[in-house]
Amino acid sequence: MTERYPLPALQELPDDIRARILEVQEKAGFVPNVFLALARRPVEWRAFFAYHDALMLKEDGSLTKGEREMIVCATSAANQCLYCVVAHGALLRIYEKKPLVADQVAVNYRKADITPRQRAMLDFALKVCLHSNEIDEGDFATLHAHGFSDEDAWDIAAITAFFGLSNRMASFSNMMPNPEFYLMGRLPKAR
Amino acid sequence: MTERYPLPALQELPDDIRARILEVQEKAGFVPNVFLALARRPVEWRAFFAYHDALMLKEDGSLTKGEREMIVCATSAANQCLYCVVAHGALLRIYEKKPLVADQVAVNYRKADITPRQRAMLDFALKVCLHSNEIDEGDFATLHAHGFSDEDAWDIAAITAFFGLSNRMASFSNMMPNPEFYLMGRLPKAR
Amino acid sequence: MTERYPLPALQELPDDIRARILEVQEKAGFVPNVFLALARRPVEWRAFFAYHDALMLKEDGSLTKGEREMIVCATSAANQCLYCVVAHGALLRIYEKKPLVADQVAVNYRKADITPRQRAMLDFALKVCLHSNEIDEGDFATLHAHGFSDEDAWDIAAITAFFGLSNRMASFSNMMPNPEFYLMGRLPKAR
Amino acid sequence: MTERYPLPALQELPDDIRARILEVQEKAGFVPNVFLALARRPVEWRAFFAYHDALMLKEDGSLTKGEREMIVCATSAANQCLYCVVAHGALLRIYEKKPLVADQVAVNYRKADITPRQRAMLDFALKVCLHSNEIDEGDFATLHAHGFSDEDAWDIAAITAFFGLSNRMASFSNMMPNPEFYLMGRLPKAR
Amino acid sequence: MTERYPLPALQELPDDIRARILEVQEKAGFVPNVFLALARRPVEWRAFFAYHDALMLKEDGSLTKGEREMIVCATSAANQCLYCVVAHGALLRIYEKKPLVADQVAVNYRKADITPRQRAMLDFALKVCLHSNEIDEGDFATLHAHGFSDEDAWDIAAITAFFGLSNRMASFSNMMPNPEFYLMGRLPKAR
Amino acid sequence: MTERYPLPALQELPDDIRARILEVQEKAGFVPNVFLALARRPVEWRAFFAYHDALMLKEDGSLTKGEREMIVCATSAANQCLYCVVAHGALLRIYEKKPLVADQVAVNYRKADITPRQRAMLDFALKVCLHSNEIDEGDFATLHAHGFSDEDAWDIAAITAFFGLSNRMASFSNMMPNPEFYLMGRLPKAR
Repeated sequence: MTERYPLPALQELPDDIRARILEVQEKAGFVPNVFLALARRPVEWRAFFAYHDALMLKEDGSLTKGEREMIVCATSAANQCLYCVVAHGALLRIYEKKPLVADQVAVNYRKADITPRQRAMLDFALKVCLHSNEIDEGDFATLHAHGFSDEDAWDIAAITAFFGLSNRMASFSNMMPNPEFYLMGRLPKAR
Repeated sequence: MTERYPLPALQELPDDIRARILEVQEKAGFVPNVFLALARRPVEWRAFFAYHDALMLKEDGSLTKGEREMIVCATSAANQCLYCVVAHGALLRIYEKKPLVADQVAVNYRKADITPRQRAMLDFALKVCLHSNEIDEGDFATLHAHGFSDEDAWDIAAITAFFGLSNRMASFSNMMPNPEFYLMGRLPKAR
Repeated sequence: MTERYPLPALQELPDDIRARILEVQEKAGFVPNVFLALARRPVEWRAFFAYHDALMLKEDGSLTKGEREMIVCATSAANQCLYCVVAHGALLRIYEKKPLVADQVAVNYRKADITPRQRAMLDFALKVCLHSNEIDEGDFATLHAHGFSDEDAWDIAAITAFFGLSNRMASFSNMMPNPEFYLMGRLPKAR
Repeated sequence: MTERYPLPALQELPDDIRARILEVQEKAGFVPNVFLALARRPVEWRAFFAYHDALMLKEDGSLTKGEREMIVCATSAANQCLYCVVAHGALLRIYEKKPLVADQVAVNYRKADITPRQRAMLDFALKVCLHSNEIDEGDFATLHAHGFSDEDAWDIAAITAFFGLSNRMASFSNMMPNPEFYLMGRLPKAR
Repeated sequence: MTERYPLPALQELPDDIRARILEVQEKAGFVPNVFLALARRPVEWRAFFAYHDALMLKEDGSLTKGEREMIVCATSAANQCLYCVVAHGALLRIYEKKPLVADQVAVNYRKADITPRQRAMLDFALKVCLHSNEIDEGDFATLHAHGFSDEDAWDIAAITAFFGLSNRMASFSNMMPNPEFYLMGRLPKAR
Repeated sequence: MTERYPLPALQELPDDIRARILEVQEKAGFVPNVFLALARRPVEWRAFFAYHDALMLKEDGSLTKGEREMIVCATSAANQCLYCVVAHGALLRIYEKKPLVADQVAVNYRKADITPRQRAMLDFALKVCLHSNEIDEGDFATLHAHGFSDEDAWDIAAITAFFGLSNRMASFSNMMPNPEFYLMGRLPKAR
């Protein structure tokens, strides 16, 4: 399917998109495919990354960046999205400085080496991912019991919902993770 | 749960958001709750509606506005999202000028009074909605056989993916459809 | 499929069946298709409506007529039966005098504007509908806690079971709801 | 749960019901529990057995009595209904004069010693039982290819639908099969 | 499929395998097909029966032989394995001296005439069978409450896991139960 | 749960088991936890590894060692078994000399960089894993079309069935993969 929706050439992209991509490349050492794959539709690209940044780069709230990636990793695994599990698994390992945690969260988060609070966070995320129609007061009560606020609940749900969109776009369009992601954060002092 | 995430007051919102909402109110005669419900987080609001507009208001592609609402209605029903089924069911009735079609598409789209081409479109959308990991070449071949291009396939998938996000946000936060939606487009010469 | 099992002509039906149909037509202003669709097999027709009347027209028990239609609407939606959701959604709106309740119950009854007692009734109905093999003492205890008797439980289960039959007959034979049903009970002072 | 809905005493039942039950007892040597269990509500009882007889005792159509019991056995197993699998398994063995067939059909009908035509019949029945909303023209075409008419299709669907009702009533009310059923038709010259 | 993997002739088998088979034949009066069906691969045969014997013939632990067969019967029914349900249903009837229990456990173990302790044992077995990834501390606590030790839990899980292997081998290779099994243990003083 | 079934000390194990474990340690540089975890029950241990070796170390048949690990990885992911996905993912990377393939196969094998023949092999394995009761002639025909023999089919099914056992034992007993596995075969010249 890569032939179906080929990656656009960097020089053909609008200035703002190219600038952001060059910035990412500068930082990561390569251009994650999602940046190019979605750029064939600049208007959608801008909305996608605006939404992404609103959720993943925001400063407030009690979720650490590692915890946000945990949510992405666990829910993307439930959706069997290769791109997101591999790419965000890399980020999860790096932010958490735990080389093993991404594989654990992706295969069976119930077995992962995470805190009970993080386990409750993932239980909520998986329910939003798979059975959002059944979310009820009891689910919020469990979050509260682990110290999460209603704003945190919104963050967990929104990250789950946004990456549910991302998972479907990546899987349908056959977006493949860059080879670099597979190894990132796995070596003792990597990055 | 309405108490959990109360709707913000219009006058407290940023200017750009308030302007858009007033414009919608002018046109529809009321403010659909999704505009207020998400406005408590302006940055997310802007990304959400930028994405929405990119997919639902775009001029190119072969999907009519009615067909886009069909996709929203069918996939939101699969996700059991009350807000989206009711609100977009109204739009579907209006765009298609068919007072019965929204209920048909929501309950069992296989029984709906739609064309075989639209049926193929909804089969693809439902697979993206429920089993995006299993989308394969055969699914595209079926779309092509009904005259859809690969860009149309992207539109179908992206609308499905975006409203999957919307469904999860609405259900989790208990967003309720405005009473006005339920009757819109049902009367012979409505609108 | 309408060509597969065409509706019989009224004048060709046995007297008792024609009489009942004319009575319904007199009252409703049209003949609901289920009356004609099943009449091609008079013996089955008589058993079907005898069963229907035994459950839906009975005078005793604590379930109101509106509540019985709620059960039909929610379980028929779970079975994705277009005929029953639309036809009994109309009756539900009329009996309950709530123009919005049928769509709410059909899309996601957990979000419907109903009482906690009605919510418990629908939880039980849905379990009988989808997992009758798992019904246990705990399910009855929950019903009792909301004031339902064992006879009420029987009513809920029997209505669910009977319309499960009806749903399968309607879906398999492609029975379509009359256009009149879609609008009934939606207007402020309708009917 | 037997205490919840106790079997009524034969002498307290209306004459017509008691007469039928005595007739069955005369023929079978015992009273199958379903006759007593449902008799606590005579109006429902009469509709239930009228429906049952219309489908299972009718003389026309191409389905043999053994094939009708096959449908009951396979779909009741899918619904995990102990009463119907055991009671109708007995009838299936007797009608088909095949002591092994009921267990085969109940556990995995794909492995049963039945004809390809009967296999197609059960495939259709199981789809009506579990996914009636997805029945389409292709399902009828398969039946036709095995020599079934549209009236036969109705019979298969109606038997499936009726016993779906019966399964839910038996499971919910904890109806237990009489011990006699378990052995009937298993011995070489049983009966 | 019997032609795909035909049963080997007894005289062609390695001595140790033939000796065990003759011993079983001596005891049962016939050779259960699993002994021959797997013998076409002697190394696998030896491992299979070594595992089987380790779990089903062991002397210690609190599970009776009848209870072990209950686990086999219930989980094999969940996997729809004809061979194992029929063959081990026979053993279950014989060990428990209850002619009805195997059909009850296979169709819906929640309705079977077993003790609450045995019901808890089967709940655990079914969870290992169908959702082993979700087993958690609460499942062990329930077992403990019914007097099971952690070693008993291991036995329940291992029997479930081993027969899950057996179920898949039997179903895939079309292994059919010997006719003798169907009737064993059903007659009052049978065997 | 590690406290529930603690790993036995190497010196307390029977000679044959300890010898094998030391041999593995010699070769791998560490003792994979499965060898110790199951050793608390020596008789089961011997049967488990005899079965394992019969399937994974056999010389004949057309499946390469890498392909066998592919089957283990894909089906263990379907069962969400952390131990087997991580441990056999390592072996898969090493045998195939493809550092990325294990993550691809585990997350969504339909996206993996494998041959169409390997894809058909995994489709068969997944059906044996999840729906063995539905395996039919068509599944074998597809394998044959890709050059697999009936003996290869047996190998695929048996590996799937055996690791289904392994998955359940590992998940239920909370067996954790050794940290060493996570990185094995990921580096260009690993090993």
